[in-house]
Amino acid sequence: MGVVVQNIERADPEVIARLGRSGVATVHEAQGRKGLLASYMRPIYSGASIAASAVTISAPPADNWMVHVAIEQVKPGDILVLASTSPSDAGYFGDLLATSMQARGGVGLVIDAGVRDVRDLTQMGFPVWAKAISAQGTVKETLGSVNIPIVCAGQLVNPGDVIVADDDGVCVVRREEAAEVADLAEARIKNEEEKRQRLAAGELGLDMYKMRERLKEKGLKYV
Amino acid sequence: MGVVVQNIERADPEVIARLGRSGVATVHEAQGRKGLLASYMRPIYSGASIAASAVTISAPPADNWMVHVAIEQVKPGDILVLASTSPSDAGYFGDLLATSMQARGGVGLVIDAGVRDVRDLTQMGFPVWAKAISAQGTVKETLGSVNIPIVCAGQLVNPGDVIVADDDGVCVVRREEAAEVADLAEARIKNEEEKRQRLAAGELGLDMYKMRERLKEKGLKYV
Amino acid sequence: MGVVVQNIERADPEVIARLGRSGVATVHEAQGRKGLLASYMRPIYSGASIAASAVTISAPPADNWMVHVAIEQVKPGDILVLASTSPSDAGYFGDLLATSMQARGGVGLVIDAGVRDVRDLTQMGFPVWAKAISAQGTVKETLGSVNIPIVCAGQLVNPGDVIVADDDGVCVVRREEAAEVADLAEARIKNEEEKRQRLAAGELGLDMYKMRERLKEKGLKYV
Amino acid sequence: MGVVVQNIERADPEVIARLGRSGVATVHEAQGRKGLLASYMRPIYSGASIAASAVTISAPPADNWMVHVAIEQVKPGDILVLASTSPSDAGYFGDLLATSMQARGGVGLVIDAGVRDVRDLTQMGFPVWAKAISAQGTVKETLGSVNIPIVCAGQLVNPGDVIVADDDGVCVVRREEAAEVADLAEARIKNEEEKRQRLAAGELGLDMYKMRERLKEKGLKYV
Amino acid sequence: MGVVVQNIERADPEVIARLGRSGVATVHEAQGRKGLLASYMRPIYSGASIAASAVTISAPPADNWMVHVAIEQVKPGDILVLASTSPSDAGYFGDLLATSMQARGGVGLVIDAGVRDVRDLTQMGFPVWAKAISAQGTVKETLGSVNIPIVCAGQLVNPGDVIVADDDGVCVVRREEAAEVADLAEARIKNEEEKRQRLAAGELGLDMYKMRERLKEKGLKYV
Amino acid sequence: MGVVVQNIERADPEVIARLGRSGVATVHEAQGRKGLLASYMRPIYSGASIAASAVTISAPPADNWMVHVAIEQVKPGDILVLASTSPSDAGYFGDLLATSMQARGGVGLVIDAGVRDVRDLTQMGFPVWAKAISAQGTVKETLGSVNIPIVCAGQLVNPGDVIVADDDGVCVVRREEAAEVADLAEARIKNEEEKRQRLAAGELGLDMYKMRERLKEKGLKYV
Repeated sequence: MGVVVQNIERADPEVIARLGRSGVATVHEAQGRKGLLASYMRPIYSGASIAASAVTISAPPADNWMVHVAIEQVKPGDILVLASTSPSDAGYFGDLLATSMQARGGVGLVIDAGVRDVRDLTQMGFPVWAKAISAQGTVKETLGSVNIPIVCAGQLVNPGDVIVADDDGVCVVRREEAAEVADLAEARIKNEEEKRQRLAAGELGLDMYKMRERLKEKGLKYV
Repeated sequence: MGVVVQNIERADPEVIARLGRSGVATVHEAQGRKGLLASYMRPIYSGASIAASAVTISAPPADNWMVHVAIEQVKPGDILVLASTSPSDAGYFGDLLATSMQARGGVGLVIDAGVRDVRDLTQMGFPVWAKAISAQGTVKETLGSVNIPIVCAGQLVNPGDVIVADDDGVCVVRREEAAEVADLAEARIKNEEEKRQRLAAGELGLDMYKMRERLKEKGLKYV
Repeated sequence: MGVVVQNIERADPEVIARLGRSGVATVHEAQGRKGLLASYMRPIYSGASIAASAVTISAPPADNWMVHVAIEQVKPGDILVLASTSPSDAGYFGDLLATSMQARGGVGLVIDAGVRDVRDLTQMGFPVWAKAISAQGTVKETLGSVNIPIVCAGQLVNPGDVIVADDDGVCVVRREEAAEVADLAEARIKNEEEKRQRLAAGELGLDMYKMRERLKEKGLKYV
Repeated sequence: MGVVVQNIERADPEVIARLGRSGVATVHEAQGRKGLLASYMRPIYSGASIAASAVTISAPPADNWMVHVAIEQVKPGDILVLASTSPSDAGYFGDLLATSMQARGGVGLVIDAGVRDVRDLTQMGFPVWAKAISAQGTVKETLGSVNIPIVCAGQLVNPGDVIVADDDGVCVVRREEAAEVADLAEARIKNEEEKRQRLAAGELGLDMYKMRERLKEKGLKYV
Repeated sequence: MGVVVQNIERADPEVIARLGRSGVATVHEAQGRKGLLASYMRPIYSGASIAASAVTISAPPADNWMVHVAIEQVKPGDILVLASTSPSDAGYFGDLLATSMQARGGVGLVIDAGVRDVRDLTQMGFPVWAKAISAQGTVKETLGSVNIPIVCAGQLVNPGDVIVADDDGVCVVRREEAAEVADLAEARIKNEEEKRQRLAAGELGLDMYKMRERLKEKGLKYV
Repeated sequence: MGVVVQNIERADPEVIARLGRSGVATVHEAQGRKGLLASYMRPIYSGASIAASAVTISAPPADNWMVHVAIEQVKPGDILVLASTSPSDAGYFGDLLATSMQARGGVGLVIDAGVRDVRDLTQMGFPVWAKAISAQGTVKETLGSVNIPIVCAGQLVNPGDVIVADDDGVCVVRREEAAEVADLAEARIKNEEEKRQRLAAGELGLDMYKMRERLKEKGLKYV
């Protein structure tokens, strides 16, 4: 602990933007149903939908010193991703830090702990996905690390991985797979559009996906 | 497992509509404080308020195959009620399935598991009460059953029972008791209206409900 | 149990108002990071922000008799604070009780249990911070006490203490410390305003708070 | 609420004994993987393993009056199964009630709430499966019902159903299916014995269950 | 924060011993069903049963510095009672600290957080009631306080209050009420002994407590 | 998904044995307080203490097919480490699989899900650390992977990493760091032995660790 990695690679901003337009559910499916953070990670307000490059923070419980350290490493389009070294719901982040993030071009926060000043953050349009909303104050006493691989809400996040987040939750895409996943996600959306129209017209999934025979083989009985 | 019951009885649509207008809290009280699903079942958006006839699904964890099977059994005014055979927060249901439901006249979903595409569902006006919001993908590998009695969020739900759901949660009313409960609920609302006016005028519940004597008997002391 | 304390002291209304304008996060910091209720206490709607004088209730699980008793003790500007003697998520409070509270000048409810009729309460502008939303009915059978010290969501609350509550949660301020905390909170807001401008201009917290030297002493390494 | 059903049917004591010898895991599998109560139901001491006929109790939160009523309905070989009408961890049951149960021939308790005096109960050899261990006292103020169908820890339990419980948890078997399930369970045990010997001799499940081909068809890749 | 109160009053050791012999469930009842800590506080091994005088610790999350400070304040017969200022499951306490406690005559620990080295502690006969067992290391960076009133697992504990703890959990008795509660607890035990004999002889609680008439008045129906 | 990595590197068995003798708490400290799995991972019986080389499994919820696949990859001294792709408490593993593991020389299981047949496993001396004990049956329908990096109970585990597990929980040590951590752990134990003797002799940690001055600097006040 106590390390700050200053030079990290980031995915192509255009690829990141495409992932953001695809959304969490589609990206998660497109990359083989992996990378989804635990469902307790909820947005502080509805309607935010972003993709961004991760600056990771491993922080002690209820100690937000490393957030200040991390913000210096933020470049435009980055998002902070914070994991606590043991469970905490303290409020590591509030409107002052969000102001600083926005001044650096940072676009959001994913935190497996607590956040505060949520009304201010909402008014600033600074989206946060968090485990808890809590005003509980933190200290600045113990070192952590910035831009090392972390486990956040059950998923490994490397610095420079792409974070996609919206009302459905948060998904991480490996930097090196981002372009391929963006392609797959867009193909999936195209494909879903046709399905949506058929379903809207009253066709059943049972028929559209040709499920009836396999259900019968498995032994499904209609009575 | 692996059974689909195709012909179920439903309550009178007019009775269902009356229960919907009464709302969860009143219906729950009217039927003797029974039938309320666990409080972790929350709506994905505020303001939805419905009553509908249950099409039940018993599904394996993280396997949404039976949802497709169930939709074929849906008639206008029905709601899907899904319980997983062991705890799961996976996202069984999203905008494509909601599109299919709406095409069949289905009006909502109650799921003791997860749901995804919540922004789309909100825009479609398709209400869901769920244990979790999660984009976690599901498979289509294992049979479950449709329209058998299930336990969902702590309550027994039979196919054709009436589901009443709003911002206060979800309540189930037995099909055969629905008409009587609708009467009792409406009587209760009428009765509450008069109480509301007296309370608004400043009368105390202590006096209106004549509680003072019984409190004294029980030994309440004022100091 | 079974005691109602009728005469309690309250803080100066002007001081209470000043604490309300400062908000939970600031007040919590200003009084030395103490007094915050557990983060599971959430508002039933966003945007409410109040400060009020506590009328406390110690109630049995799923028994709301004492709420009626407490309302008689409410004076304009008071808030009810209810703790259950063992964990409960039942819905102790709904629109009729809120009507009665508003008629008495009561301004809200903090409840380490459940609340119902949340849509009505929202429309009435009656804010509630609760552990659960639940329509589960309660009985009126067992005595509790009113205006005794209680532990609510992990914090001691005395009758007459000041409750500050907003989207960040709920904080309690001792009555006798209220004026001093209000001063400290306002000083803190003033101080933060200048910091906010410097951070918005791109200055780093690392520099503004002069953290670099201490981080180096502790051994932080940049690589 | 407020009903005591006095005459209930019970399964054949010999069948109940056979289910008890088979154990929870085997019985659960034998009846098609249904009937298992939620995994938070844990025994207060290790090593108890019983089967018994259910006397059901629907009780208010933190009110154990109905336990006294239920004990009068207990016959030798019966077990009490208690569900609270809303969540509670209060200690409904202790050594005095266990003494009374044993005097009537009752053999245990399954309770979706709390139990106390666990050291005494252990010394008495009175097994309990519970959600919580808690000394929290209860009242005797509100009616519930005895020997009606209840939902306990996520499963429907009818009076007279067979409860099988051991260190793996608690499983309910419908009274009318008990004999058939006992047969299936014993067949399963016989079948497992042979498998156990082959596995102990080093044979792989992959071969014994002939899984390799199906894994290959599904696309499993060895690298 | 950052205060150590050195001189605290303790209850009479004889009274403490009598409370210990009565046990948690009896003491809790004897003092009017108050003072019980939350049921998630569990002993690290079965069979410990103690009463002791509380030395309280308010500590930051995952920081055990104040435990060292507190041990200097321990006198023979004392127990440490630790609450974290925000939720933590870190392992604040292990075999070295227990060795130090035993050298000072300290008899146990109640901690609303985590403990480690539980096998060593068990072998040493040093009982702990904790929220979690966790080896997670802590730091020594931030001040807390010793011997101030704290809220631990939902109950207010003052320095010098008596802690009673056994397999049923943990109960706090106010120092000034300890002698009276000890009397009431012993009277209760005496009274229960006679009841136990009558119940063992087959008498029903319904008759012994004369419940039948009141049940009838409330409307209980036998069918 | 659907990949089995057959050739993995393992740490030196002698190093693994040394880590096992050091225990979880010491190893966790020795490697800089990292690698500890979440505290909800509990042993099914007390007193087991092992270190072993990880064979990892990524499995679908409630589907134990991959456990069979993984056992073929087990070599003497290995332990299975299973993570579910979404939360599950189903019982993936019982006495037949344990028999097969023991026949292959496998020494235990760490599972972020459920286990069953715990009495048999205890009698066999087959230790398991699990999130839940549950008899809930699983299916064999969907592929997962074996010997890929997984996140289990909040920690990254690579195949061939060393798992240390005892009554304090579970800790993972990177294969390439295992020898160094074993050295550090043994040095730590030696160092602690001397400290233990001094503490047992009554010396205070405050003096032994020379904390008094730094506490004073931070502002600790004795009153």
